Order: sequence, then C-alpha cells, then structure tokens
Amino acid sequence: MLKLVGATGFRTFRNVWMLEELGVSYEHVLAGPRSPEANAGSPFGKIPSLCDGEFVMYESAAINTYLGDKYHSAAPSGVTDLVPTAGTQARGRYEQATMCIMSELDAQGLWIHRKHEALAHIFGACPTAVEHAKTHTARTISILAGDLRRQGPYLLGPGFTAADILFVHCCNWAETIGWGEAWTTALREDDADMQALARYLGLCRARAAYERTKAKKIAESGNS
Amino acid sequence: MLKLVGATGFRTFRNVWMLEELGVSYEHVLAGPRSPEANAGSPFGKIPSLCDGEFVMYESAAINTYLGDKYHSAAPSGVTDLVPTAGTQARGRYEQATMCIMSELDAQGLWIHRKHEALAHIFGACPTAVEHAKTHTARTISILAGDLRRQGPYLLGPGFTAADILFVHCCNWAETIGWGEAWTTALREDDADMQALARYLGLCRARAAYERTKAKKIAESGNS
Repeated sequence: MLKLVGATGFRTFRNVWMLEELGVSYEHVLAGPRSPEANAGSPFGKIPSLCDGEFVMYESAAINTYLGDKYHSAAPSGVTDLVPTAGTQARGRYEQATMCIMSELDAQGLWIHRKHEALAHIFGACPTAVEHAKTHTARTISILAGDLRRQGPYLLGPGFTAADILFVHCCNWAETIGWGEAWTTALREDDADMQALARYLGLCRARAAYERTKAKKIAESGNS
Repeated sequence: MLKLVGATGFRTFRNVWMLEELGVSYEHVLAGPRSPEANAGSPFGKIPSLCDGEFVMYESAAINTYLGDKYHSAAPSGVTDLVPTAGTQARGRYEQATMCIMSELDAQGLWIHRKHEALAHIFGACPTAVEHAKTHTARTISILAGDLRRQGPYLLGPGFTAADILFVHCCNWAETIGWGEAWTTALREDDADMQALARYLGLCRARAAYERTKAKKIAESGNS
C-alpha cells in the first residue's frame, strides 16, 4: 500500500497529481514540513515523502520517477507512460527535463525567492540573489517554452509525462509569487513562446487528475 | 559514437568519470561555458553536453543516468550496475540521491557560492545567501555521511553507483572552496559520520576510473 506524506499545498502537489494520473490507490497523510510525520520520511524534515510498504523515500521528482517506473506497464491502454522506458532517448530527455526543472527552476529560481524573500525572517533577506533568481526563472521558463513551441504540445513531445507535472507546478508557483506576467498578461501577445506556454498550461490544467489535485489542495486549505 | 562536450575542470568531470567507469569509447571535446560548442549542446550555453549520434542532451546528472541505462547490460561481469534497474527500490534510492545531491548540495549549496561569491562580479555579492548555502551544504553532507556510516560503504549500500560520482564531485568542490574542514581536518575525530565520509572518499578516489579522470583534468589545466 502506498502512503504519501505531505499537505497538497507544498511540493506534494506533484505527487498527488502523479498518483491521480496513475489511478492507483494511496493513503494521504496531511502533514507540514518539520512535523513528526515529515521527519519520519525525510532526514531534512521536508515533505513530501512516500512509503511503499517498508520502503520510504523523499524528493518529489524522484518519487514521481519511482512511481512512473513501478507502474510502467500498468498504464491503461492508450495512455502514454508517464515516465519513458529506461535506456531510451525519450528517457534521456525526461531525465534532462526533470534535472533542469529541479535545478534551474525550482532550486535556483523559485526556492531562492521562498528562502530569501518569503521566508527572509528565517533565512535572511537577499534582494540581489532574489533578483537574479527571478531573471533565471524567466530565462529557464522561456527556454522550456521554446521547446514546447517547436516540439510540443508537451515537454517531451506528443505525450503528457511526469516532466509536465513538475513544470506546470513550477509555473503555478511562479504565478503565485507574481513572476508569471510574461505568459499570463497581454505581454505574451508579442511572444510566440509565451503563447505556446499559455496554451500548454491550459491543456495540462484541464486534465481530470489535475482538477482532482487542485480540489484537494483547496479543500485542505479550507480545513487549516 | 558518443561525444562529450566540456572541459573536465567543470561538472563534465562527472561524465568523464562515468564514461571511464563504463569503459566505453568516446570523443571528448574540450570546451568552456558559453563557447560555440557549449551553445550547440545546451540552450543555457552550459557544459557538459552529450551527443549520442544525432541525439543531444545536457544536465550532467541526467547524462550519467542515461549512460548507465544505455550500458546497463553491458557492465562487465562482477561489476555492479552504475545505475540500478528502473522499477526497483534501489532505483528509487538512486533517484532520491541524485535529486538530493543536485538540488540541496549543488544548486542550493555550492552553486550559490559560485554565483554570489566566486562570480560576484557577474551575479552580485550576497554574503547572507552564501552563508546560508554553506550551512546547508554542511547539513546535507552530514546527512549523506550518516547514510554512509549506517549503510555504506557506498551511498546506495554495497555497490558503487553514479550517485557516488555526483557526491564525490560535490565533496571535491566543497574542499576546493574551503568548505571541507569537517572531514579533511582533525575536526572529524569527534564525528563518526565525518570519519565514514573520509573513508568513503578515499575508497572512491582510489578507483582507476577516478584517477584517469583526475589526470585528464590536470593535463587540461596544464594546457590552458
């Protein structure tokens, strides 16, 4: 039995969405960072973590790759595998996309804002680092949006994958902190890449599994 | 035919080491960041990139995972696979380790020093961010060293994997910038985790493939 630990309003969103796409049953433990449940699953006290029987792991992107591999052959007929088969070039592109999103967009972009602006009372204010992170986020999103325009509709081409889950979540995050003007406003009218990104986000957010995940997040925040 | 792009003194070190471990033949193009060769392989102008025939990819950790999967069954008898089989818990732990090293140690730790201290003339000086990155690096290394002590000798247990390549490279990097006192000096005498780390680094650095990689790096710097 799978057990996912972490409230949906955090990076856990990615794993709830993945599990909803896979259609497998799971227990969901709502817990915040540094809670006893978080500490049990991650030596960093972070969420999410996943328990698969006795096996416990952390890191949101790694969890989705593990889940995609585990349920690889269980995908319903007609549904593209969410994580491409290991040893293929498609898998190489998947590894590249997830590493790029996690390093360039999450860790070097959005998380710098989180640490050194939103949580500056804990980590210290660093306006220069945040300003660079904003520029870096915009550049990274622009590069990935260019990929979408040239070889979409999804990041790896014709099929929706777990790389899209990561990317859409990061775009949501960017919008939440006011870093999404390039594709959410009229600014996009002069930029074919940003138009491609806006279409892509609409396509991904229309998925039933995304809608269920978002509903979960809203329900949880109503309860907190 | 494989072609690796990037001088060994950068993150390319990881991929040279991986290719030397695998024992496959490859062409090595020595190029720096933002060079024409770098720009051809990565939209960020970064190194390394890998060409496998017509297929081109970037992101050092993703390249090693791709190589490990591609040559999975080609590993010489008696040699543990450098990247565990997809769909196993060992692979889950591999994905977790690589994501943790890339996000927590490289992007949120060492790279912050690189950007906001070593390259402060380009990215701006941010002493508060660098100070936090140093603390975060120490904590991340300490957590991984604890794993080594409890379930080593390697990050995933009994066998050397591509996760060790990443980790050793990041430890080398930390030592280079003066963040390695905890395990390189007498400080480690009171810390069993740091002793485990020092033993581990000795074990990994004694590998023939590591020594060949280091010799390449030294030869290149002599030529530059």
